[in-house]
Amino acid sequence: MTRLLVLGTGLLGTSIGLAARAAGHQVLLSDPSPTAVALAADLGAGQALTGDAPAPQVVVVAAPPDVTAAVVQKALADYPDAVVTDVASVKQSILSDLESAVAADQLRRYVGSHPMAGRERSGAVSARGDLFVGRSWVICPHPGCDPAAVQAVTALATDLRAQVTTLTPIAHDAAVAAVSHVPQVAASLVAARLAELGDEALALSGQGVRDVTRIAASDPMLWTQILAGNAAEVLAVLDALAGDLDQVRSALRQVSEDGSAGGRGTLARTVAAGQLGQSRIPGKHGGPQTPYASLVVLVPDEPGRLAALFADIGRAGVNLEDVRMDHVEGADVGLAEVWVLPAAAPVLEQALAASGWRVHQG
Amino acid sequence: MTRLLVLGTGLLGTSIGLAARAAGHQVLLSDPSPTAVALAADLGAGQALTGDAPAPQVVVVAAPPDVTAAVVQKALADYPDAVVTDVASVKQSILSDLESAVAADQLRRYVGSHPMAGRERSGAVSARGDLFVGRSWVICPHPGCDPAAVQAVTALATDLRAQVTTLTPIAHDAAVAAVSHVPQVAASLVAARLAELGDEALALSGQGVRDVTRIAASDPMLWTQILAGNAAEVLAVLDALAGDLDQVRSALRQVSEDGSAGGRGTLARTVAAGQLGQSRIPGKHGGPQTPYASLVVLVPDEPGRLAALFADIGRAGVNLEDVRMDHVEGADVGLAEVWVLPAAAPVLEQALAASGWRVHQG
Repeated sequence: MTRLLVLGTGLLGTSIGLAARAAGHQVLLSDPSPTAVALAADLGAGQALTGDAPAPQVVVVAAPPDVTAAVVQKALADYPDAVVTDVASVKQSILSDLESAVAADQLRRYVGSHPMAGRERSGAVSARGDLFVGRSWVICPHPGCDPAAVQAVTALATDLRAQVTTLTPIAHDAAVAAVSHVPQVAASLVAARLAELGDEALALSGQGVRDVTRIAASDPMLWTQILAGNAAEVLAVLDALAGDLDQVRSALRQVSEDGSAGGRGTLARTVAAGQLGQSRIPGKHGGPQTPYASLVVLVPDEPGRLAALFADIGRAGVNLEDVRMDHVEGADVGLAEVWVLPAAAPVLEQALAASGWRVHQG
Repeated sequence: MTRLLVLGTGLLGTSIGLAARAAGHQVLLSDPSPTAVALAADLGAGQALTGDAPAPQVVVVAAPPDVTAAVVQKALADYPDAVVTDVASVKQSILSDLESAVAADQLRRYVGSHPMAGRERSGAVSARGDLFVGRSWVICPHPGCDPAAVQAVTALATDLRAQVTTLTPIAHDAAVAAVSHVPQVAASLVAARLAELGDEALALSGQGVRDVTRIAASDPMLWTQILAGNAAEVLAVLDALAGDLDQVRSALRQVSEDGSAGGRGTLARTVAAGQLGQSRIPGKHGGPQTPYASLVVLVPDEPGRLAALFADIGRAGVNLEDVRMDHVEGADVGLAEVWVLPAAAPVLEQALAASGWRVHQG
């Protein structure tokens, strides 16, 4: 059991508290907002930090990127025996700030880290104790690190069931520029083009544009801090992307002017290069995907019908792993997609059909 | 009951066959590939076209965009009494080709259309009879259309449970440039940047990059035809996007050189503009994005508790608009997030709290 202090009870801090308590650790919570701490504590993420609490062994700084270095610096001073880590999305700029502000014998106890587990929604209510399960958690030791500190942060990430990867801060920043920060910029740029569109045009939005722009809903303040904190690496990837974009635009200009076959070749190569790049993304969570089975049930859009469905599922003795509602406009019917363990799917399908539900395999 | 002929048994053609048969229509299938027809027929999408089959009343051309105009032209000649539609993703270039190749009295029976229901997977095996349920199906009459032909295609789309929208071919092409074709290009460009990345960096891929690049897995041949067929409209949107991208790159250059506050302002405005654009995408299945309120309820992870929650919601007389389960690993508790009309949220919160549920505002 480790005595953990989490500074910052947003999405990541609260999720860390939930997961660490589930792993048997003692968790203290602190946040500039007392309401945020109370909510996190109520959700089961830990206890609010009090003045007489014993000193933590590990401090996790889960603050916005812009203030992370300052909060880490204060934590190193406040808890002179604790290992301190942070979970910000950029690493080298935070380390540089700390190196110029903190003595080397203090900085030995600091190890930067980054769990690759955000959501486009923020705050404690979006927190999940399983947020880190199977996800990468990058640990970024600096040359002056105490090996015991690296060991303590690695143990914490492992306890939270993440996959630990070790990278230098610079290698980390280059990697997240390509796999996280540039996708965010692209999503924002595509979504911005929708702002002036007419309602009739927007009504044609399908799953493709929804997926491409989903993360465009993310917080501008947070993302300004992340992009600014990793400016050089993001710029390098965007420069290359802009070169490719210029080629696509030239090709479209040629095709629209004279149907140029050369233009078509560029378009085909662009889509093919994307297909190749996309295929290199490893399987979800980097590990095997839990193979749940899903059933789609038609639910009349009337009060009580959804309750009746869940009552029937309960009577079938089947535990739901997940559930998702879709609406069919005008048809006065909803689609409830329910995920269950594969062995339970035929049982549930039969039970629901026997109760009069229209069930399809998802 | 309509006698339908589907020319092209890929994803869309086979899905149309499945859905039309489910709606009680008779479906004949044809494709240049006999294997493709046999597979679609086996899947239940209809019967292979034979020489002695009675003439169809409606012909649906579900061929690749590049050959669609030629197949439509042949269908108009082969079946002089049939209404002919196509389902290609671009409309004006196909109409222009037809206008220069087909006599006006023949072209009266043609009405272009476009069901907004692709998948990144292609072929008959990916077909689904419910592919069009609740999706937009754009119908693009031209000035010389027979109103009865428009009516026949509208009836078919409605029978397949799609939401019919009517647009001119040019308005359609401008709309899909922004909501479909440019997102595809962006996904391909972001994904292409992953091709040269090391495995360690790719291992950091999270849900964001997966979502942004999902459609980059689409077929290069098909997408070359779509982009080339809508080159001018796609170019106009990409030109604007490239202007925004240049601003982001300048801002990142400023920030990385001197931490410029002006650069940060541009980054914040870019992400905020994306947030605004993303928020304009209508609710799933084309309805207005009603601003529902959400409540998060803690649900012990035991059989029957979820059913009890929905029973309590039903007793409160509140209709659920959406529901989503999250699990809190280890804590033996789940989070049910329920969306209701804003006016109903306080009522429901009080009722659930009174029944002993732990409720937070989402």
